[in-house]
Amino acid sequence: MSAEIQKRREFAEPLVREAGALAAEYFKKREQLTIEAKGPQNFVSEADRNVEQLIYQRIKETFPEDSVLGEETGMHDGAEGKLTWVIDPIDGTGNFVKGIPLYCVLLALVKDGQPVLGFTYDPERDEMYVAVKGHGATLNGAPLKHISESQQLPTNESTIIVGTCKRHSSIPACMDQRINLLATGCEYRRIGCAGLSLAWLAAGRIQGYQEYFLNSWDVMPGFLLNREVGNSMLPIPDSYLRNGGEVLVATPDLFNVLKKIFP
Amino acid sequence: MSAEIQKRREFAEPLVREAGALAAEYFKKREQLTIEAKGPQNFVSEADRNVEQLIYQRIKETFPEDSVLGEETGMHDGAEGKLTWVIDPIDGTGNFVKGIPLYCVLLALVKDGQPVLGFTYDPERDEMYVAVKGHGATLNGAPLKHISESQQLPTNESTIIVGTCKRHSSIPACMDQRINLLATGCEYRRIGCAGLSLAWLAAGRIQGYQEYFLNSWDVMPGFLLNREVGNSMLPIPDSYLRNGGEVLVATPDLFNVLKKIFP
Repeated sequence: MSAEIQKRREFAEPLVREAGALAAEYFKKREQLTIEAKGPQNFVSEADRNVEQLIYQRIKETFPEDSVLGEETGMHDGAEGKLTWVIDPIDGTGNFVKGIPLYCVLLALVKDGQPVLGFTYDPERDEMYVAVKGHGATLNGAPLKHISESQQLPTNESTIIVGTCKRHSSIPACMDQRINLLATGCEYRRIGCAGLSLAWLAAGRIQGYQEYFLNSWDVMPGFLLNREVGNSMLPIPDSYLRNGGEVLVATPDLFNVLKKIFP
Repeated sequence: MSAEIQKRREFAEPLVREAGALAAEYFKKREQLTIEAKGPQNFVSEADRNVEQLIYQRIKETFPEDSVLGEETGMHDGAEGKLTWVIDPIDGTGNFVKGIPLYCVLLALVKDGQPVLGFTYDPERDEMYVAVKGHGATLNGAPLKHISESQQLPTNESTIIVGTCKRHSSIPACMDQRINLLATGCEYRRIGCAGLSLAWLAAGRIQGYQEYFLNSWDVMPGFLLNREVGNSMLPIPDSYLRNGGEVLVATPDLFNVLKKIFP
């Protein structure tokens, strides 16, 4: 690991934990804060903004030359051609605002359009997933198994998570794909949190994730986790960082099946 | 609360916690135990059986006259016309076996076909939901709000959880219903755990739950939780205890919408 990456890896993990603790504090006081903030939408915006500010400020103090792209505050360019941090302060805000305990804090470091560091923290279960490009992936410090070390599940014993239909061309077409999926014997879940889904996939708990559009802050940490454990995915074009794009990640055999179902 | 219910309420809560801790122990050692048990199916059967045995034995020692219906071991009749305990040692076994942290322990006490006590314990988040017929529902000791105390969400801001399509007459017909649901603006999730879903519904985190067939051990605690907070549901016929049946539970306004979508 280069010194610049090593320094940032050590810096970021405790920061993401701290950000997760702040998010969890908001989550716990949700009901009361919803009333104070005059509505759930204002409440979640405040939580999102303050968690992002915590991460953003700390990065700017420590690595002023780095760029930062935040879900809430957009792109802040640092020195030309430098590293870019990508922040999703609360991934799964739809769950968060309702009190469904499925959300996480996401932070990635991107170089030349590709993730080189990724942090996914689930404060409700105290699970910290870390991926370092070329150095594998861990969950609470324990290495996640590489796909080559475990038997891939057959399609009809697999479970994938899918995203919303809202960004699909049409809801019936989206549902047709799910019919085709179920016809293979593969089950699906919808949990409303891409970050957790991709982390669970890297940990071998599910076998795939599909959604037609997500932003880079939703997926960069999960992309790296899954690359490091040897799962298959669509290539990440340079434009993904700023524009987002399609997400299809799965265990290698299942990936080929899913590519046909979700063209 | 009658003395017989009071005694059983005090007895059951710590027992369900203990059972949850045992389930969580299995869950934590899942990977290792899956190998030892020679396959995931044997592993989950062993976990299910041992958690149920713990609950069953303790009931039989303490209330030998009560009947017990367990998911794993079937009906054990006590004295005629007495109370029946209904055990689901691990609800969400499909998640449990894969390592998806969405499962719970369920225990209900049923009298004349209707639940009078209900316990839902999520060991992963240490959330204990208790319902006592006519005495309300609590989450970790704090009363859950009655629906009359909170504003019902409009349909297009609601989220429901739906069960599997597998028990539906056909997958395309099941998906057609979901298309009709999404057309109302109501979102849906699939988490693979009815017990947690019904508890989240009683806690106001989601607004409905639908599945065409479940067994009594999957739903009796959740039915009581939702009755106690004033949510609407289909009537529970006497046959439900032994034969199971349909599940549709929702906040009152949404219930009327869902009844048309899921006839």
